[in-house]
Amino acid sequence: MMLAPAIKRHFSEGVLVEEKMNGHNVRVASVKGKTIALTRGGFICPYSTEVANDQIPPELFKNHPDLVLCGEMVGPKNPYVPKEVYPAESMDFYLFDVSRKGKRDMEGTSKTHAFAEEYGMRSVHLFGEFGLEEAAGEIKEIIKDLGSRGREGVVIKDPANLKSPIKYTSSESNCRDLEFAFRYYNDYGQDFFFSRVVREGFQAAEWSEAEAEFEERCLQLGKSMLGPMRETVEAKIAGDLIVQEVEIKVKDLQTATDFEEHFRRMGVRAIFDSPQACPGGHLVKIKRLVMSTNDKTESVIEGQLW
Amino acid sequence: MMLAPAIKRHFSEGVLVEEKMNGHNVRVASVKGKTIALTRGGFICPYSTEVANDQIPPELFKNHPDLVLCGEMVGPKNPYVPKEVYPAESMDFYLFDVSRKGKRDMEGTSKTHAFAEEYGMRSVHLFGEFGLEEAAGEIKEIIKDLGSRGREGVVIKDPANLKSPIKYTSSESNCRDLEFAFRYYNDYGQDFFFSRVVREGFQAAEWSEAEAEFEERCLQLGKSMLGPMRETVEAKIAGDLIVQEVEIKVKDLQTATDFEEHFRRMGVRAIFDSPQACPGGHLVKIKRLVMSTNDKTESVIEGQLW
Repeated sequence: MMLAPAIKRHFSEGVLVEEKMNGHNVRVASVKGKTIALTRGGFICPYSTEVANDQIPPELFKNHPDLVLCGEMVGPKNPYVPKEVYPAESMDFYLFDVSRKGKRDMEGTSKTHAFAEEYGMRSVHLFGEFGLEEAAGEIKEIIKDLGSRGREGVVIKDPANLKSPIKYTSSESNCRDLEFAFRYYNDYGQDFFFSRVVREGFQAAEWSEAEAEFEERCLQLGKSMLGPMRETVEAKIAGDLIVQEVEIKVKDLQTATDFEEHFRRMGVRAIFDSPQACPGGHLVKIKRLVMSTNDKTESVIEGQLW
Repeated sequence: MMLAPAIKRHFSEGVLVEEKMNGHNVRVASVKGKTIALTRGGFICPYSTEVANDQIPPELFKNHPDLVLCGEMVGPKNPYVPKEVYPAESMDFYLFDVSRKGKRDMEGTSKTHAFAEEYGMRSVHLFGEFGLEEAAGEIKEIIKDLGSRGREGVVIKDPANLKSPIKYTSSESNCRDLEFAFRYYNDYGQDFFFSRVVREGFQAAEWSEAEAEFEERCLQLGKSMLGPMRETVEAKIAGDLIVQEVEIKVKDLQTATDFEEHFRRMGVRAIFDSPQACPGGHLVKIKRLVMSTNDKTESVIEGQLW
């Protein structure tokens, strides 16, 4: 929430600053000779698994069968968190930590980047190492630059890997999260909204910005909530079904079928279009049903009270 | 949430539009010959009771011992919801409905205003009666005017008193509520924030306002959240205790003592200053402790994570 005091309280020997990417978190491991990608709830995601098999060289798990790769899947064809801001055509895997099967500890930043380099994998960008006094100021500049490029924020790590990492996000990322969530305002938890507004409040206070800058922050915050919500209401008035449109790009058609089953098992209601052939594979458009927002908006425009 | 469809769905014979005032709701009745004022949880509020005794003529309950007056206490010396926008020096009682002891039904708008007139009491302003087709447009104008004067909104009632009333608030009132709540951001429920933002979203959509007007709404919404929150963080950084300052003006010193006991019984933690003599009575400044916001802000500026 507040960079300078949190860094001084939490770390003792300086910090490493890495980019926090905005996608979905996966753990990739080799099980019975097969590379699989698990999403947060411990589900095997067939689509993430295809991407992992495509982007992680098989010799890595041959050499290190007990390795667990922790990374972020990002890109415009991410069905969980679609983001156009990354240099990906579909979805890419970025390594941010490594662990071993049966262990809770991570192996730390230097081993992670060494692995990535050795096996030619993408890893999250490391901005550098900073002393405790200078870190907050440096991170503020990094965050402003990341924000202006549509990126999410940073993860601040202990160089000796003895403290848990902390995360810090850009105002632009908070607003984009809100923009996405307010489009489906009744399908997101209220703490999702509240926590992002509170982050903005602390950031504005810590950075003691000039009045014009503060007004711009307020305007962007307000727009990120009311803009998409207004569009949802207008769409419903026009008779549209409110859905969340995402897409995946698979190499193997079976992956699309398995992914549809995976969504069903996760309890996600979605309509899958027929796959369209495209260079390098097949594109599948998916409409996730956001029934609560759809039904609530419909009832309000029909004159029901909240 | 949306005026036009809600009015058409909810009412059948036109509507009466009254001002919704922003204070606290009380029910006033005579019990064993004494006039008492009850707040929402059914507590007797000694301060509201003093105001009721002062402003409601005793012959009203002599003539109608079973009457229950439903009204709003408003003004700058309201310790629950202090508002400077009403023409009150301390706190005034405005009648908005009447009922009878042991009955659930209200007696309706015309009897209410007749009672108020007969006994010389204040009652909420009645804007008039409107047909179902014209009502939404008329109310929009009323709401915009009320909002520009810092007032809260309207209550829309069935002239024949057969349907339950519905409420509609101005954007300025939503923002002022948020402004108040974000000053004590960790002591308010998240649904308080969310419901007000959602109201703004529906109002923006229903009134299909021009882009400049919409941007102004977004800016005001953003400022109403981040402005007071920034001030709270800055005050805490400056070492201040975060408290909510209110005051009451009592005629009788005993009322202040009783009110202090009433707050304690309600579970409100507050510090009462010594009463100061003032024209017409005694002024008592009260600091309500908002411990959750105070402690959370303190921990964050000391570098704790959320």
